Amino acid sequence: MEKTGTEKAAVAPAATGARRPRADRARQVADLLRREILYGGLGTGRLPLEAALAREFGTSRNTVRQALDLLREERLVERCPGIGTTVAAEKYPHGLQRLLGLAETLHEHGRVGNEVRTMGLIEPPAAVARRLGLAAGEQVVYLERLRRLNGLPLSLDLTYLVRDVGEPLFDADLEGNDVFVLLERIAGQPLGTAELTLEAVNADAHTAAVLDAPRGAALLMVERLTHLADGRPVDLEFVRFRGDRLAMRGHLRRDSDDPEEGACP
Amino acid sequence: MEKTGTEKAAVAPAATGARRPRADRARQVADLLRREILYGGLGTGRLPLEAALAREFGTSRNTVRQALDLLREERLVERCPGIGTTVAAEKYPHGLQRLLGLAETLHEHGRVGNEVRTMGLIEPPAAVARRLGLAAGEQVVYLERLRRLNGLPLSLDLTYLVRDVGEPLFDADLEGNDVFVLLERIAGQPLGTAELTLEAVNADAHTAAVLDAPRGAALLMVERLTHLADGRPVDLEFVRFRGDRLAMRGHLRRDSDDPEEGACP
Repeated sequence: MEKTGTEKAAVAPAATGARRPRADRARQVADLLRREILYGGLGTGRLPLEAALAREFGTSRNTVRQALDLLREERLVERCPGIGTTVAAEKYPHGLQRLLGLAETLHEHGRVGNEVRTMGLIEPPAAVARRLGLAAGEQVVYLERLRRLNGLPLSLDLTYLVRDVGEPLFDADLEGNDVFVLLERIAGQPLGTAELTLEAVNADAHTAAVLDAPRGAALLMVERLTHLADGRPVDLEFVRFRGDRLAMRGHLRRDSDDPEEGACP
Repeated sequence: MEKTGTEKAAVAPAATGARRPRADRARQVADLLRREILYGGLGTGRLPLEAALAREFGTSRNTVRQALDLLREERLVERCPGIGTTVAAEKYPHGLQRLLGLAETLHEHGRVGNEVRTMGLIEPPAAVARRLGLAAGEQVVYLERLRRLNGLPLSLDLTYLVRDVGEPLFDADLEGNDVFVLLERIAGQPLGTAELTLEAVNADAHTAAVLDAPRGAALLMVERLTHLADGRPVDLEFVRFRGDRLAMRGHLRRDSDDPEEGACP
């Protein structure tokens, strides 16, 4: 920890910065730029010149260059000599406030199309049967989809559905609809709650190829168990989102008054 | 999409599986095993033998082996000839239901220790000043911490605090306390809400070194703007969690009755 006791009010950004490795300062600048690129005033075109960014962040051009390199590694920007730095990819916000299907949450951003990779009735492994509350021997519908937004791969979804609500999906338009919307139609009641787990994992070679991403690319992995309004669990999903295409957004309260809070650690 | 129209009821797991690439089946098994390893009945010791896992998942030993390889790539398990597969790392659940500091949410799992890497008063970049609602020229406290759980690196936190609640932290025990708890003491009021964004990113070389993770390791990145109960934004954070050490857990409702839902897309 730096000595900041008496001279703390005099610590100018450059002074604080000069004592720290450039990589630390570059990370700090990259985090602020990432936000600006994704949701801020920079738009989808070209970023300001390095000299202007250096002024804005009170740092050197070398640090700005290193920050832009970090964002290029994340595939958020492209850098071309003579042209400058341009935004490479749009990243979409997936709402964390409500239980929504992909097409529902992204409807402002374009069209979600689903490619069904496989679908069939299977004897579920014990781990699946247990979470869906099924007796031994009860079959489930297994569904695997590659989901695209405006034609670009966004997520790979592995879904286990209890048989009575899953089986009618064999005759439904899965390419153009969220499963959530179809399930509510089939069950004749809305969905209720879902427990979810969010993780960051590296893409294995095969998954990377399916999602058209580099091997090892960071994926946002979501496991979600969804219940009907009457409380019955019907839908267990394992979803891998491309980390460079999607961010989850929501808000939290310090004094949660959610009656179900105790249910999840 | 496979033809499943008439013979769907006869599609046994093996039959469904046999038509699909082994990598797809391995991913499916890996997702179920990941859950079992993290929260399930496998404990922290040795996994069942490959033959037993093959029986449980109704698949071949080769597929099980490939699934275990995927989990080894994620650094969740270790595989030793003659010994078998053992759980390599514990992954901790961070609650998504309530706004909690790290030590608060992980108190059952061990002791959180914070290493202050830098701390000082800085002139904030415009992007920071805007989000914290500050006038031009107002300084903020910048704080950078490496956070460990039971001695192992868990996250790297970059924090911007408005001056009046941030400055007293210079004299506080930051090594042993969450900033959230200290802020509430200083402000004399509880925290209120926070907006957060969750992303998966690859670790750059320098960040990987700080977190003692391989370069490119998947990180769970959290950006969080926290307000006091009176609504004033006071704390803007950029947190990188090691993806192999932490998962976010929570639940969602289909019919959100959250009055603030409209605030976040």
